[in-house]
Order: sequence, then C-alpha cells, then structure tokens
Amino acid sequence: MSGVLAVAADDPLTSVMAVIQVVLEYVGTMAFAISGAVAAGRKRMDLVGVVVLACLVAVGGGTLRDVLLGNFPVFWVRNPTYLLVAALTALAVIPLTRTRALDVLQRLHIVQVSDAAGMAVFVVTGTNVALAAGANEISAAIIGVISGVGGGIVRDILANEVPDVLRGGQFYATAALIGAGVYVALLALDADPLIVFWIPIAIILLIRLASLRFGWGVPTFAYEDRG
Amino acid sequence: MSGVLAVAADDPLTSVMAVIQVVLEYVGTMAFAISGAVAAGRKRMDLVGVVVLACLVAVGGGTLRDVLLGNFPVFWVRNPTYLLVAALTALAVIPLTRTRALDVLQRLHIVQVSDAAGMAVFVVTGTNVALAAGANEISAAIIGVISGVGGGIVRDILANEVPDVLRGGQFYATAALIGAGVYVALLALDADPLIVFWIPIAIILLIRLASLRFGWGVPTFAYEDRG
Amino acid sequence: MSGVLAVAADDPLTSVMAVIQVVLEYVGTMAFAISGAVAAGRKRMDLVGVVVLACLVAVGGGTLRDVLLGNFPVFWVRNPTYLLVAALTALAVIPLTRTRALDVLQRLHIVQVSDAAGMAVFVVTGTNVALAAGANEISAAIIGVISGVGGGIVRDILANEVPDVLRGGQFYATAALIGAGVYVALLALDADPLIVFWIPIAIILLIRLASLRFGWGVPTFAYEDRG
Repeated sequence: MSGVLAVAADDPLTSVMAVIQVVLEYVGTMAFAISGAVAAGRKRMDLVGVVVLACLVAVGGGTLRDVLLGNFPVFWVRNPTYLLVAALTALAVIPLTRTRALDVLQRLHIVQVSDAAGMAVFVVTGTNVALAAGANEISAAIIGVISGVGGGIVRDILANEVPDVLRGGQFYATAALIGAGVYVALLALDADPLIVFWIPIAIILLIRLASLRFGWGVPTFAYEDRG
Repeated sequence: MSGVLAVAADDPLTSVMAVIQVVLEYVGTMAFAISGAVAAGRKRMDLVGVVVLACLVAVGGGTLRDVLLGNFPVFWVRNPTYLLVAALTALAVIPLTRTRALDVLQRLHIVQVSDAAGMAVFVVTGTNVALAAGANEISAAIIGVISGVGGGIVRDILANEVPDVLRGGQFYATAALIGAGVYVALLALDADPLIVFWIPIAIILLIRLASLRFGWGVPTFAYEDRG
Repeated sequence: MSGVLAVAADDPLTSVMAVIQVVLEYVGTMAFAISGAVAAGRKRMDLVGVVVLACLVAVGGGTLRDVLLGNFPVFWVRNPTYLLVAALTALAVIPLTRTRALDVLQRLHIVQVSDAAGMAVFVVTGTNVALAAGANEISAAIIGVISGVGGGIVRDILANEVPDVLRGGQFYATAALIGAGVYVALLALDADPLIVFWIPIAIILLIRLASLRFGWGVPTFAYEDRG
C-alpha cells in the first residue's frame, strides 16, 4: 500500500464492511438532506428551496472536494444518485413534519446520530480521494474535513445564517479534523485496511456523540472594537 | 445527431434563429445586470458593488456550470464580452434611476420579461454544454437549471439575503427544470434542431410569464422547532 | 519577454526584490488572517470559526483564481504553508486581544497597511498567473483583482455581512483594478521586469493609503423601489 487505501473485496469481513460503508453514506446523505429541508422550513422557503438546500447539504462537501482537487466533472454530475436520494428525502420531510414523526426522530437524536455517521464516512472517503489525487497528508486531511462539513456551511450561507459549524462551539469540524489526522497517520503506519478505515470513523463518531451528550466543545471568541 | 444539438447555419430560418438566440443572450445579460445593480442599490452599495453584483448575476450561472463540468478557463475568462456588457449596463442603471426610466421599465415589466427570456436561453444552452461535456441527461438538466438561476442566487448571497429563487414561491427554477427536461427529451426523440432548441425556451418563458401574471407558483414550507 | 513576467534571479537587486516579495506575501497573509479572526470574534464564533475565517481570507482569493483558471489542485493543496501561517496567526490573535496589543496594532494602522501591501502583491501575482494560463489582458486583470479581494468577500459572506469591499465606499477593489491594469500595460510596453512588477504594487498601495488617510473613495448608490 502506497499511501492510499485500496480495499480488497474478497474476504467476507471486508465485504460486510463495504456494505456498511455504503449504508452509512446513504444514511448520512438522508440525514444531511433532512437538515437542509428543516433549515429551509425555518426560513419559510418554498419547495424549490427545500429541495435545493437538501441537495446542497448532501453533495456540497463532495463538490467542494472535487473542485479543489480538480476532479471533473464533479461526482454528482457523473452519478446523480445521491442528489436524487437527497431530493426525495427532502420532499418526504414535509409530510413527516405534519405527523410530528420528525419531532420524534429528533427527540430520539436519530437525525443527529445519522448526520454524525454520514459526516464521519464523508471525511474519511474525502481524505482518501485527496490522497489519490496526489495531495500531501496535511492538505488531504483538510480536504477530508471540507468534504464532511462543507455542505452544512453552504446550507447556512443560503439560509442567510452564520454557519453553525463556525459558531456552535460543539465538536464537529474538530472531530472531523482529528479523524482525518488519525486516518492519515494509520495509513502511514501501513495498518490493516479495515482498521485504517473504521478507526477514524469510530473516533469521529465518539467525539461527536460525546459533544452532543455532555456538551463538550471548543471555546468561543468574542471581540469588541475599542476606541 | 448523437444527443447534443449541433445547429447547421446554412438555411435562412436557422440563421435568423441563431441571431435571435444571440440577441436574447445579450437582452438577458442586460436584464440580469439590471437586477444586480438594483439589488446593490437597495443595499446602498458603492459603485464597486453595483458593478460586481451586476457581473455576478450575468456570468455567475455560466461560471458555476463551467466549474462543475470542468470547462477551464471558465467562459468569461476566454471571452470577457458578457462581463463588459454587464458592467456597462450596471453603470447605465444609475443615471436611469435618476430619470425614473427604470421605474417605467419595471412598471411595463420589461426587465422581468427580458430576465425570463435570458434565463430561458441560458438554461437550454447550459444543458447543451453539459451534454457536450459528457454529462448524463439528469445531470445535464440540473446543470442547465444552475446555468439559468445560479447568478441570481450568488447576487442574493452577496446582498446578504435569502435567495429569492428559494423563497419567492414563484415558478422560476421550476420553469427552468421543466424546460431543461423537455429539451433533453426532445433531443432523445431526435426532433428537428430548431424545435429542440426553441420549444423549451418558449415553455420556460410561458410558465414564467404565467407565474408573474397570475401569481401561480410553488407552495412554501414553514417549520417551527417544537419541544 | 512575451506577455508574462519572468524574473531572472542572478543580479543582486532582483534577488533583494524577490525576498521583499515573499516577505510582503507573508505579511499580507498574516494581515488577512487577522482580519478573518477579528471578523470571527465580532460574530462571537468559536475557535473553529476563527481559524476557518482567517484561512479563507488568506487563501480565498488565490483559490478563486485557481478555480476560474483551471489550475488544479489549487495552490494551497499543493503547498499548505500559507494555510498554516494563517491558522497560527488566527490562534495568536486571541491572546493578543487580551493584552490590547491588537488595539495598538490597529491604532497604528499596522494591520491596514499590511493588508494593503499583501493585497497589492496578490493582485499582481494573480494577474501574472492568469496571463501564464493564457488569459487575455482584460480577463487577467479581473482575475488579479479577484485574487486580491476575493478572500475578504468570502470572509464577509461567512460572517453573514454584506461584503465590505462592495459597500465601504473606499478605494480597495478600485485600487486593485488600476494596479492590475497598469501591470498589464507595463508588460505590453516590455518595460524592465522590476518596474513592471513593483510600479503597480506601489500604485495600489498609494491609492489604498490615500483612501485610508484622506477618506477618498467611490460614491455609493441608493435605490428605493417606487410604486
């Protein structure tokens, strides 16, 4: 292995994990789309806004990754499946809000946990895409973080809000950066591919859930102009 | 014809239509620039803001199209004519507002109709550029919509507003998507090139004008966080 | 010389100026990062926001330049040094604000002058990169302006403000455009490389400092919708 993860698909454990990876990507895409649709609803957007915001959260990070690296056309132009999943999820959110099912999902933190799982997978696969494109370790980890959190930033810009990931004081981008760093380090150590891939995802998920559960996070910085 | 429109320029009707296409592109560019200059004026920007916003509406959608597809350098770097037309239009708007001419233009809906015509042309040509770059039908239609409405979204982001196209409840992006879909379908049916090109433009224009005239549009979605 | 500046590094004056160029680039990067960190502090962002905003101001303009031209991967993926300098500067700003050192720096206009110097260098090098990528003179000058002022625009978008460069009424983007135009003109005149490079930088700096000192600038445009 020369710096980039290549998964051999011929042993059963690897196959199972590959399926889990795809499942997490779709679960994450749906969670991202829900957060976009909810943000659109908070701003009383129309159906176009609901679908556009959902799609932007779902594919925004990966689009930024591909643009910064020069992978063209960007991934969803090559394969619009994730975009369609995000659009359908967004349209499904609207009747869900009428039945209070969305409130139940949120009270059980199912959306937040799915969001964390998807973000974790996108960070690791994004870092991997960057390494495959020839990026150095530091840049690849940064591209991985952008892949995971960029969509949420684009959502908040279109909703005319300061991006939550920059202000919320939670472990989110920080968890992503730690996970990307661990991924790059494990790759350099030539560890087993399954460990290389899943340990960073587990770390991101744990940090993120601990932040949600215990309120851990990063300090905020307030600055007032003086005389 | 293999999926992409190629217009033969040797019969008179085709030549006339090609001229009309270019006229609509410039009319649309000027209408887009006016909307940018007006948005800058509402936010009391300076001359730099007026010119920048006008240029961003005029070339923003095409720039996003080229970036997502990987057409580099983007079109206005290769040929800055549209950018110069947009900048000059923006500077012309300022004395126009002093003479109330702009109000007359707006009361007669000339700016809105020109905007719709330009948007319609940009959607179809954008879809065509995407197909020529190898995109599949679904992605090409989405790229076409982005080509037509992306500039207005960038304008509203810089004016620090929720993009009107996501919240206005009018048929705008929806009209664009229907037109792009009809264009892709007509291409697949191997219809006459003039029909393939102009029917979608007419459909977008009709839906858009009906939305303006009769108030037709898409429903809005309001969501309040509960407990 | 055929349109693009190529500096020969074998005479002492050229070597000294090359060192000054690098110094100005780092001074400018630090000034840009400070403006990002301060903007984050005004919005009470967390440490993630402080670092992200600082990095976006520092590398945002060059990233837009590379994306519009098609230079991939973008410069900071190839070499993350500027990104690391920006991040460290941002983290250093926080204790500085506790000691009022930042206020002293600002009262002595050291941050504003450093910002102007960095902007001037980025405009000229950005124009040069565009010419090297084959852009015509007009497009190259525009790309140069975007290289210099794009980062500040991205900062203000993420801080949920109308970009200051579009509204402040100061000579900033205007100074950049004049400098880029002079650079392109001097290149066409086949002037001495040192003159070609440094005269535009001096002009941008002078216009910018005159604007700060004497309040010179561009008029603003206010537009109210009427009946």
